[in-house]
Amino acid sequence: MVDPDALTENLPEVLRPPVSRNVELLLDSRIPARVAWVSPSRAPQVVPIWFQWTGAQLVTTTFAGARKLTEISSGATVAVSIDTESFPYRVLRMAGPVELVAVDDLSDEYRLAATRYLGPTAGEAWCTSLEARPQVAMRLSPTRAVASDMSRSTFLADHS
Amino acid sequence: MVDPDALTENLPEVLRPPVSRNVELLLDSRIPARVAWVSPSRAPQVVPIWFQWTGAQLVTTTFAGARKLTEISSGATVAVSIDTESFPYRVLRMAGPVELVAVDDLSDEYRLAATRYLGPTAGEAWCTSLEARPQVAMRLSPTRAVASDMSRSTFLADHS
Repeated sequence: MVDPDALTENLPEVLRPPVSRNVELLLDSRIPARVAWVSPSRAPQVVPIWFQWTGAQLVTTTFAGARKLTEISSGATVAVSIDTESFPYRVLRMAGPVELVAVDDLSDEYRLAATRYLGPTAGEAWCTSLEARPQVAMRLSPTRAVASDMSRSTFLADHS
Repeated sequence: MVDPDALTENLPEVLRPPVSRNVELLLDSRIPARVAWVSPSRAPQVVPIWFQWTGAQLVTTTFAGARKLTEISSGATVAVSIDTESFPYRVLRMAGPVELVAVDDLSDEYRLAATRYLGPTAGEAWCTSLEARPQVAMRLSPTRAVASDMSRSTFLADHS
């Protein structure tokens, strides 16, 4: 069994608790993670996908059979940006190796994500409708992370 | 000189005019493009950045000296996602080779982007404050593109 403290100790500084308010807002937000990987033909790929932060890993979950699962293997490096689309521009970027874990039912992290993105009632109904659909959870252990936070006025002042 | 019609003819179907309302909303939006590339060490990278769509190319502009310019060369493939952070989930993904073009002053596309993201007054003031800072425009010619559009109710209905 993995020691949860060990996972947290190895985190890049911006993700180590207590995280900044900026990072907390992004990790608790309903913003999809933009997840990037390198395909076998060495082309970059990027898609938006729901995420769940466990405190030590970023988990995204896909239905078994999804195309990207044929392009990402356990051990591959995946990069993620979680960022706002308008001011204040908050950005959290992280990257690290992933582990793919097949689950017979929905992953715990997927249930938490559905509740966060859809709200408790719709999230629960949604998960009930999906039960028995095999999923694959992609667990990213960040080895590097950077964060920034810029209001409109800071943005204008910093660059002029 | 490049024939603009030729550029448009070679576009992937979803980007060929007239584009769908969904695609138009994304290309005209203030949502930053999430741009992904592969670093020389073969790691995926993803960052949010202002973009401008010319009708045939997606242009992002960086100040000369930016780190990503050391990782991307003309001819490399870059992938982009322009997508909403909440319902309705609209997504436009495209990828293709880029051409890097150094500009002594600001690129035309950067001025248009600044006006769109900041509004006319702040956009102009912003560009004035930046003059004489050398930039590099990254011009992406899409060779593939996909789009989707999903309201909350469609999302819930389609997956249950």
